[in-house]
Amino acid sequence: MPALDVAGEFETIERLLRPLAHPEWGRGLQDDVAVLPSRPGHDLVLTKDAIVEGVHFLPDDPLDTVAKKLLRVNLSDLAAKGAEPFGYLLACFWSERCGWPEREAFAAGLAEDQAGFGIFLLGGDTVKTPGPATFSLTALGWVPTGAAVSRAGAQAGDLVFVTGAIGDGLLGLKAARGELSLEPERVAALAAHYRTPTPRVDFADVVRDFATASVDVSDGLAADLAHVAKASRVGVSLNLNVLPLSAAAQAWFADRVDPQLSLEDLASGGDDYEIAFTAHPRHEETLRREAERRLLRLTRIGEVTAGSGLTVTYDGLPIVMARSGWTHG
Amino acid sequence: MPALDVAGEFETIERLLRPLAHPEWGRGLQDDVAVLPSRPGHDLVLTKDAIVEGVHFLPDDPLDTVAKKLLRVNLSDLAAKGAEPFGYLLACFWSERCGWPEREAFAAGLAEDQAGFGIFLLGGDTVKTPGPATFSLTALGWVPTGAAVSRAGAQAGDLVFVTGAIGDGLLGLKAARGELSLEPERVAALAAHYRTPTPRVDFADVVRDFATASVDVSDGLAADLAHVAKASRVGVSLNLNVLPLSAAAQAWFADRVDPQLSLEDLASGGDDYEIAFTAHPRHEETLRREAERRLLRLTRIGEVTAGSGLTVTYDGLPIVMARSGWTHG
Repeated sequence: MPALDVAGEFETIERLLRPLAHPEWGRGLQDDVAVLPSRPGHDLVLTKDAIVEGVHFLPDDPLDTVAKKLLRVNLSDLAAKGAEPFGYLLACFWSERCGWPEREAFAAGLAEDQAGFGIFLLGGDTVKTPGPATFSLTALGWVPTGAAVSRAGAQAGDLVFVTGAIGDGLLGLKAARGELSLEPERVAALAAHYRTPTPRVDFADVVRDFATASVDVSDGLAADLAHVAKASRVGVSLNLNVLPLSAAAQAWFADRVDPQLSLEDLASGGDDYEIAFTAHPRHEETLRREAERRLLRLTRIGEVTAGSGLTVTYDGLPIVMARSGWTHG
Repeated sequence: MPALDVAGEFETIERLLRPLAHPEWGRGLQDDVAVLPSRPGHDLVLTKDAIVEGVHFLPDDPLDTVAKKLLRVNLSDLAAKGAEPFGYLLACFWSERCGWPEREAFAAGLAEDQAGFGIFLLGGDTVKTPGPATFSLTALGWVPTGAAVSRAGAQAGDLVFVTGAIGDGLLGLKAARGELSLEPERVAALAAHYRTPTPRVDFADVVRDFATASVDVSDGLAADLAHVAKASRVGVSLNLNVLPLSAAAQAWFADRVDPQLSLEDLASGGDDYEIAFTAHPRHEETLRREAERRLLRLTRIGEVTAGSGLTVTYDGLPIVMARSGWTHG
């Protein structure tokens, strides 16, 4: 009986990754490449995100959730463009600490999310690194030809919406680090959001049909809306008073001394993986109905103006955000 | 004047990578994603390779050649499948040593090869790592629908060919490490092959039209032919006596005491980035003509049999390769 290449690259591909491969296009991960048939009437949307242990995830984060988060942050990018995901390529740089059980956990996380999101592994590379564990993922999705939503289409008069809640990314990191003094179930909910955020994949078709510009909230709501303002050459306003908070974030917020500064922090924290988008006011009712149908919270947080840049308001007045430096005008 | 985000990710994207972006599909690297139109009548071929400083390249390798090698090893994968490259996504994990000049060198290497191979950057991610410099690249190419060449089509009676020369990968690494005692220009030629191998991109259409199975020589000629034998469920023979050597490799070979063992080393070393393929004997003349037309050496190195696995012969007799353990049968 041949010796097992324990935690070697051959065994990793053969036993852990091959079962995840797309039944046809991934070629059983045996052929150096993936081959995808052209899909008439559709554009291919690609995105690539990279994460490093100690920089983008915590050294004691379980590897199944690291795998899921890596996949989900990429799916979030696709969803914000209106694309439907179907597959991904993966590069794993395993550190010393990534033995066989850690690799199994990583693959198990991928397997669960593949089933949940209906996607498959298409190919990639697996190598060892003397540095921290590092991963890179290229996610692929389809949109009908020409229908991908960019950051650049916002028009003066549009409204600004965001899905779900803002701030759980920032608070989730604090929770995962044990820095929050809240009830245990609140802390657990926030840490879970940090480790396995929910990309708004099932809202992608609504974004595609109605959004004039769209972005996923990864850098921070304020920064991401500023990107939209710049790319669309318009002004965007954000009303901090209506920032949608989760139950856990509300509990945290209730204990703050400076509410304005706290809201600024939540709007700057990033890692939320919600979709922020602009749409014509005539679609507001439809958008609310489509969100409700998906049991998804949708909040109108601002509007698009003929100006330039992001204007953040609190209690009806424009403010200069202390930490991120976003100003009006 | 705003302070320069020296060697920061924003500046890296803005000043170094944006000029490399595909004029349309890369969306100026401003939109999280790349959007590719469907190309009717074509399949998309994708491959992803990853490299780590100190593992896949030497810590003192100049970063312009590191960038080129990363691109070229991926282009080599595409060429062996008969695909025509058009773009790539890139993840850079910059180490401490990657300051602005190193990043400029990396981008300059990419720019030169983009011009040389007619390809563009489509997107990606750039982050810092506390570990060694690490890079991951996803390369994309087109083939006419159904025409991608796999490892699995070799038929008993086919001949086995390889482009260029074998062994310069192994000797090039020794040369780059200063471990070879040859004339300086030989050492320089071998080190150059190690740092910037030449993917056989302009032979891809010939492979596509005539090869029954194909693989690029990255793991080592013997190992890669064994992959073809396994995937095609046939036997493959490799005649070590006709192994094509470069002038520099011939100079090295002339000084060896054990010629058989030396040829085994060259056939096991890998990193050659030639194309090894199988084809029906009736195409031999055409293949030679097409290779000549491209000023490319083409060598018939073996044949496909009804057996299984790789058989390596030397002086007409099957041998067991001492180091890699490839046996006949």
